[in-house]
Amino acid sequence: MKSHVEREITELKEKILRMGALVEERITLAVKALVERDAKLAEQVATSDDEVNHMEMDIDEKCLSILALHQPEASDLRFIFATIKINKDLERMGDQAVNIAQRTKLVITSPPLKPLIDIPRMASLARDMIRDVLDAFIKRDIELARMVCERDGQIDALNDQLFRELLTYMMEKKGKINQALQLILISRSLEKIGDHATNIAEDVIFAVVGKDIRHHADMRET
Amino acid sequence: MKSHVEREITELKEKILRMGALVEERITLAVKALVERDAKLAEQVATSDDEVNHMEMDIDEKCLSILALHQPEASDLRFIFATIKINKDLERMGDQAVNIAQRTKLVITSPPLKPLIDIPRMASLARDMIRDVLDAFIKRDIELARMVCERDGQIDALNDQLFRELLTYMMEKKGKINQALQLILISRSLEKIGDHATNIAEDVIFAVVGKDIRHHADMRET
Repeated sequence: MKSHVEREITELKEKILRMGALVEERITLAVKALVERDAKLAEQVATSDDEVNHMEMDIDEKCLSILALHQPEASDLRFIFATIKINKDLERMGDQAVNIAQRTKLVITSPPLKPLIDIPRMASLARDMIRDVLDAFIKRDIELARMVCERDGQIDALNDQLFRELLTYMMEKKGKINQALQLILISRSLEKIGDHATNIAEDVIFAVVGKDIRHHADMRET
Repeated sequence: MKSHVEREITELKEKILRMGALVEERITLAVKALVERDAKLAEQVATSDDEVNHMEMDIDEKCLSILALHQPEASDLRFIFATIKINKDLERMGDQAVNIAQRTKLVITSPPLKPLIDIPRMASLARDMIRDVLDAFIKRDIELARMVCERDGQIDALNDQLFRELLTYMMEKKGKINQALQLILISRSLEKIGDHATNIAEDVIFAVVGKDIRHHADMRET
């Protein structure tokens, strides 16, 4: 029979998974709105952050109540500790989906600047990172978590490449400056989502092995 | 005589204050490097994030050890819970100081675009917010924390104004596009620092009154 704490932790895992799935969906929809130039969808994503926010508060409350009622020890305590931080990273990812949707509304008022290839690719990489890192969290799989950390460099590289490309556009076409600038900021939002996934991966490793791997040059791009 | 937990919490408060002071100093130096066009100082801030990172890990460890050894209750538990989150916000502010310094290195390679007035003003507002919100944290002063939340709008407004102004520059002077873009991103970093201070203020209020005021339209710019 499972102990109280185990049952509570199982419930917490489910909540985190649900929140991760929602955040992932919102990133997908924000980028879909951009690619398909769908103003209605962009508006919808930009104004519907409430569910993510409620989930964040609900998970915080759950963590606090487990700490207060069950005084978990050792690996359970580290798990709750990691969850408090993971929750915050997921909520910030949700904020980035809102940012993307808001900027999309501005971008699609003008004819397309160039075919959008890199941004959907970055979004797809970011979504895979979220999925894998939450999978690593649930399964306590530190190898998978480590792989997520390593993949962050791919999004960073795409972000740098797109920045340089869009900067060239800006210099060539004065009328496109604002649009290119908004795309640069969308690309940066996706890059930030990758950073949050990396933070989560580090928290997962800490929760499992009890060792802090943050801020080590071999594990993380600075 | 103070209890064990009280002593530990006092120590934790001191650590948070030291970290806040360091982050504040790093923001000051990053913006000083920009205003005084000091490449050496920019390089120094851009490459010296280790101390902030170590402080973050040290505070996390302290929180975890208090939870494990003393199983704090009620307001002490909420205090530790808030500290875990505040610690993360402070570290992110430190990251923004690094971003500002890195962009400064690029900005000052060309002659100045315009006199820098808004950015130092934003930096000064951000620093005041950090100082006040940590003061509110130490003194459990929710009125002061609420005032910090309200002040975030001022930084946001300056950021919006500077964005529009720099966009106009970009359209008028092609050769200045990259420089103006870097200034836009520096301004956004300062705006993010204001957001982190607001997050901390919300956590302080939660720690003191046990009520979650996040994600309420009346308290926070979205």
